[in-house]
Amino acid sequence: MRRILLKVAYDGTNYNGWQKQPDVVTIEGTINETLSRILEEDISIIGASRTDAGVHALCNIAVFDTNTSIPAEKIAFALNRRLPRDIVIQESREVPLDFHPRDSESIKTYEYTILNTKFPLPTKRLYSYHVHKDINIEAMKEAAKYLEGTHDYKSFCLAKTQVYTTVRTVYSITIDKEGDIIKFTFKGNGFLYNMVRCIVGTLVYVGRGVYPPEYVKEILEKRDRQEAGPNAPAQGLILANIEYVNKEELIIREDKC
Amino acid sequence: MRRILLKVAYDGTNYNGWQKQPDVVTIEGTINETLSRILEEDISIIGASRTDAGVHALCNIAVFDTNTSIPAEKIAFALNRRLPRDIVIQESREVPLDFHPRDSESIKTYEYTILNTKFPLPTKRLYSYHVHKDINIEAMKEAAKYLEGTHDYKSFCLAKTQVYTTVRTVYSITIDKEGDIIKFTFKGNGFLYNMVRCIVGTLVYVGRGVYPPEYVKEILEKRDRQEAGPNAPAQGLILANIEYVNKEELIIREDKC
Repeated sequence: MRRILLKVAYDGTNYNGWQKQPDVVTIEGTINETLSRILEEDISIIGASRTDAGVHALCNIAVFDTNTSIPAEKIAFALNRRLPRDIVIQESREVPLDFHPRDSESIKTYEYTILNTKFPLPTKRLYSYHVHKDINIEAMKEAAKYLEGTHDYKSFCLAKTQVYTTVRTVYSITIDKEGDIIKFTFKGNGFLYNMVRCIVGTLVYVGRGVYPPEYVKEILEKRDRQEAGPNAPAQGLILANIEYVNKEELIIREDKC
Repeated sequence: MRRILLKVAYDGTNYNGWQKQPDVVTIEGTINETLSRILEEDISIIGASRTDAGVHALCNIAVFDTNTSIPAEKIAFALNRRLPRDIVIQESREVPLDFHPRDSESIKTYEYTILNTKFPLPTKRLYSYHVHKDINIEAMKEAAKYLEGTHDYKSFCLAKTQVYTTVRTVYSITIDKEGDIIKFTFKGNGFLYNMVRCIVGTLVYVGRGVYPPEYVKEILEKRDRQEAGPNAPAQGLILANIEYVNKEELIIREDKC
């Protein structure tokens, strides 16, 4: 028995998210079916991040166990020949049998893209959130500072989320504007369900002057989802990278795209 | 009677190119139908650039004549409410009745994007050409120099192209690499059918070492399409800008995306 790690890139547009569910097409379900057919075993992958419907990835991580004799690095090629074009395995390799992509300490990088123009651009529509109103970048940067560090992010996740703790550590939130594109980069040790989209939606409220930057600190302290802004739409979000910090050999992918 | 100018952005993925044709969906045909319905007139737009199937645009230019009393700048909003999401009018305004988008002297900017990675990235697949082999950027830059200036580009267009002259002026070809993305920017007073895609395909041959850079000069001089490399695929190409040089008021769109 070997444990194989996959680096998975996908365009989430046509999927009901990562996690397999009955009767809908998901990334996990599609990879399970394709792998099971190739390896002639019943394969269930375990993903590092269960991205939501419409969210994209440059590099999600998944593992599965197999008895196959196919060399680990060939599995990416075999999968890519059979997967639809909107899911592409970037790498496959063997990892220790005790490596678990969710239980191992990691730094996840999410990027969120806003197109800030009068009218949407068709070639950006699947990968950005179009905002036609003026956005104050400096105000958003100021507000974002309150959200860095270790906090209880209960105000910024789906109210009904059932998790052991809503405390997470966000190492950094950077916001850059280049031309009409505003890019948010989040690095953290984990993110709650909808957390990045809720933070972006709240920061856009700040950027549009609906909330003053300091109000974000108040939202955080209130621990109440109703205080935060709306979720920014899924298509602007991409899981860019996952680095496993305690296992040097598993550091995955430098930010490249 | 007034002449209205439209700046048209589109995602060419689902269209059989700009030019209207019977029984297939085209950008021109879609805009004609939508405009005719809104204005209750039989409208035929005239486009500056008849982009090929699968090619995108940030800013193509079209004009049409109308008797409508709707303010010119409102037409963009009315169109965008009814057009499919992959065509978006960026601006509409009145221009002199003698302005013709093809006969007026202009500088056109086309951009071509290559993704140079081992495996394709799903989120780039509709807007780039994936090349997994190593590409020598400096060799391509050297070769591109031979293609700047005023030349007969007969070797770089569809062999059966019927035009008065295959002489064009290419003001500049710039090639930049940022991470895994290689971007070509072409500025010229006009491009022949398939010319940008054929030049990119030829430059990629140079970048991969199939042709030495100097050989591009020879290809140009032979005036024979068979000498050049293959057309690079349509989805990597985007019409980025058109500037009308003799009519200051018509300078269209600074490179922004």
